[in-house]
Amino acid sequence: MKEQKVKPSILPGFMELLPKDQILFNKMMDTIRRNYEKYGFVPLDTPLIEKSEVLLAKGGGETEKQIYRFTKGDTDLSLRFDLTVPLARYVAQHFSELNFPFRRYHIGKVYRGERNQKGRFREFYQCDIDIIGNGKLSIINDAEIPSIIYSTFKDLGFEDFTIHINNRKILNGFFESVKVDKKIEVLRIIDKLEKIGYDAVIKELEEIGIEKDSIERIMEFIGIKGSNDDILLKLKELNIENEQFLLGLDELNKVVHYIRCFNVPEKNFIIDLTIARGLDYYTGTVYETILNNYPQIGSVCSGGRYDNLAEFYTDQKLPGVGISIGLTRLFYQLREAEIIGENASSTLSEVLLIPMGETLDYSIEVANSLRNEGIVCEIYYEDAKIGKKFAYADKLNIPYVILIGEDELQRKMVSLKNMSTGAQNIIEISEAAETIKNRL
Amino acid sequence: MKEQKVKPSILPGFMELLPKDQILFNKMMDTIRRNYEKYGFVPLDTPLIEKSEVLLAKGGGETEKQIYRFTKGDTDLSLRFDLTVPLARYVAQHFSELNFPFRRYHIGKVYRGERNQKGRFREFYQCDIDIIGNGKLSIINDAEIPSIIYSTFKDLGFEDFTIHINNRKILNGFFESVKVDKKIEVLRIIDKLEKIGYDAVIKELEEIGIEKDSIERIMEFIGIKGSNDDILLKLKELNIENEQFLLGLDELNKVVHYIRCFNVPEKNFIIDLTIARGLDYYTGTVYETILNNYPQIGSVCSGGRYDNLAEFYTDQKLPGVGISIGLTRLFYQLREAEIIGENASSTLSEVLLIPMGETLDYSIEVANSLRNEGIVCEIYYEDAKIGKKFAYADKLNIPYVILIGEDELQRKMVSLKNMSTGAQNIIEISEAAETIKNRL
Repeated sequence: MKEQKVKPSILPGFMELLPKDQILFNKMMDTIRRNYEKYGFVPLDTPLIEKSEVLLAKGGGETEKQIYRFTKGDTDLSLRFDLTVPLARYVAQHFSELNFPFRRYHIGKVYRGERNQKGRFREFYQCDIDIIGNGKLSIINDAEIPSIIYSTFKDLGFEDFTIHINNRKILNGFFESVKVDKKIEVLRIIDKLEKIGYDAVIKELEEIGIEKDSIERIMEFIGIKGSNDDILLKLKELNIENEQFLLGLDELNKVVHYIRCFNVPEKNFIIDLTIARGLDYYTGTVYETILNNYPQIGSVCSGGRYDNLAEFYTDQKLPGVGISIGLTRLFYQLREAEIIGENASSTLSEVLLIPMGETLDYSIEVANSLRNEGIVCEIYYEDAKIGKKFAYADKLNIPYVILIGEDELQRKMVSLKNMSTGAQNIIEISEAAETIKNRL
Repeated sequence: MKEQKVKPSILPGFMELLPKDQILFNKMMDTIRRNYEKYGFVPLDTPLIEKSEVLLAKGGGETEKQIYRFTKGDTDLSLRFDLTVPLARYVAQHFSELNFPFRRYHIGKVYRGERNQKGRFREFYQCDIDIIGNGKLSIINDAEIPSIIYSTFKDLGFEDFTIHINNRKILNGFFESVKVDKKIEVLRIIDKLEKIGYDAVIKELEEIGIEKDSIERIMEFIGIKGSNDDILLKLKELNIENEQFLLGLDELNKVVHYIRCFNVPEKNFIIDLTIARGLDYYTGTVYETILNNYPQIGSVCSGGRYDNLAEFYTDQKLPGVGISIGLTRLFYQLREAEIIGENASSTLSEVLLIPMGETLDYSIEVANSLRNEGIVCEIYYEDAKIGKKFAYADKLNIPYVILIGEDELQRKMVSLKNMSTGAQNIIEISEAAETIKNRL
């Protein structure tokens, strides 16, 4: 009697990669990690499951509906939906054991029961950094963040990207100065400018009852363009006497000055008065990052400054600044657009050893030598025709094959075959190792 | 009115580390990964949440009770409880897109609702490798595995550990030869030898009705000791004509031969006829790894050979061999025993830059240079007394401080202070970079 099989499949909205893509994905993750570490951030890892009471302390909103929440025994549990809430909980919980400013990075999976839709994921990686101050945090940190974004995306292989920078205090102060009190609503509409265009923004502003005069001034304000210095000058020349506005402008001037100290090229960052990043969390500098040839992807790295990380858990005032890269979505988009993935390899192996005849002992000796040299290699042990063994190397895209027959064994040498050129030579093991290591 | 705060805490049975320990933990994980990659294994990453129907295809047993299982909408979901079932599902699902033998590693979190107990975790990392064959898989793979265990634990800093090796076919064949048909029960009892001792094993064998003669032969068999060659010889001299037994003995002879080819020192592996590794999964070679100075930790790396990875999902016959390191538990035990963690640092930063006076622009220039040299550094931006800045470096265990005052700025140099010796010198930036890089 034949057993009933269960159809092997995963849930919709979950990303699972074949080795070729997984290797690419991990390379990107390693690059991000290396850059985060270079700037002195320390790693954190928090549980994926937390008490619902803790994770949902802030409560309300879209997020709560999307959450994976369940009970085990009589405990109410939830899967984390971002890395910020766990950070807030962590810092509040371990406050006395941490040193401030606390610079942490966290690369991990988060969960949201999103509507099932192409390019939307229910399980995805976020790669976050945050710098948390105890009571206060220097504005210079806000200028270091773009330098980290720049360094990271450059290392990821991008040249043509722009970090868009704004300051919420400037926005808030400006709205106060034009006597608009529906700030949140107006910000939400302005945030859509890129998506819906000028006319639609004006129409929506009218719909929420903003006066004609104010709309004109708002559109003039968000229409301020030019070089970074031009924009800073035009903002100054608005002669707005609002305290928030002036504070924000001062911050933005400092941020721009120090971004330049960090050698971020002028073409890679721009003041953009239209970005606001969400509604009630950020309080100062905000960032978005656009790949200029692929604006349809949207922001690939966003974040900003906030006044109070952990207000739901502690009375400690913990201002911070941070960014997040949504790696799963970014990878998916880059892969779909075929920006990455060409000529990708399905293996990390640099060479496949193929023993022929009674040469396995010697072949293992050769593998030992290569591995001692740091070369990633594997031996084809299976009983198969030589063609099948070569096909294996070919399909995985392994750059070299080492053939070891009786002749090579006698002479204590190896036949090294370059799989792309087809060239094959009998050489010393050490020479083969050098060739493989120096191939790039 | 003051808001009610939520007490920041995590669930019992979940491990969360302070930066100092997290850095150590990640170093261990990196070491394991590097070794797995060196042997040509490719990375895999599967969803943490799967369909319950798929994850529990095998069904039954302790595991099912411990599982985190819940519904979202009308979908029955479970968190993975190991990395083997997801591998089986993955290989069955992607069978036609994979190349065999398929060598994969997977480092990820798994979930088990264990009884709440010190040293038991409900969320823990497993670090697995498996080699999966299509239809068949050479026995040489079974000999390569100990070489990977050896290389990994050596890199983790251990010297005195032993890989215990056995073969289930030898056990099965032996039991057949002594006409014991309660193999599973007998194996389970023998597996406890280390824990409960000889007398208790005999007692338990009597209790399940094994005859006195058979018990004597069993105890004689599992009492076979000596060097690896001694044991192989004694097994041969038992003159057991059982087919399974002879097949297993032949496999074990080959495995020992090739382990030696892989240069695993004789003192680091031993044939141990008492280990069986679970009851119904393994079918050939089995492994356990013991840290000889800390036997109480139990096996730190275990696994073995199985005939059929994915029988619940596919008719394809997929034999494999693999091992797993339970990293969370291992880390916890090593940390508790104070084997690791001494002089651990709370940062990855190699140097803290402290600007004094109006030298921030220049300080950032210095940081740029150091980071270009691959040095991990951070700048202390906050407004604070110099003592507090040094205290920060001290608490984090940052090995160097660079002081940059007006004098250093004028001379385009830096003051480099070694935090352990207290020595301080005004030197060129490049010299400082060299000193920091060469400190080890």
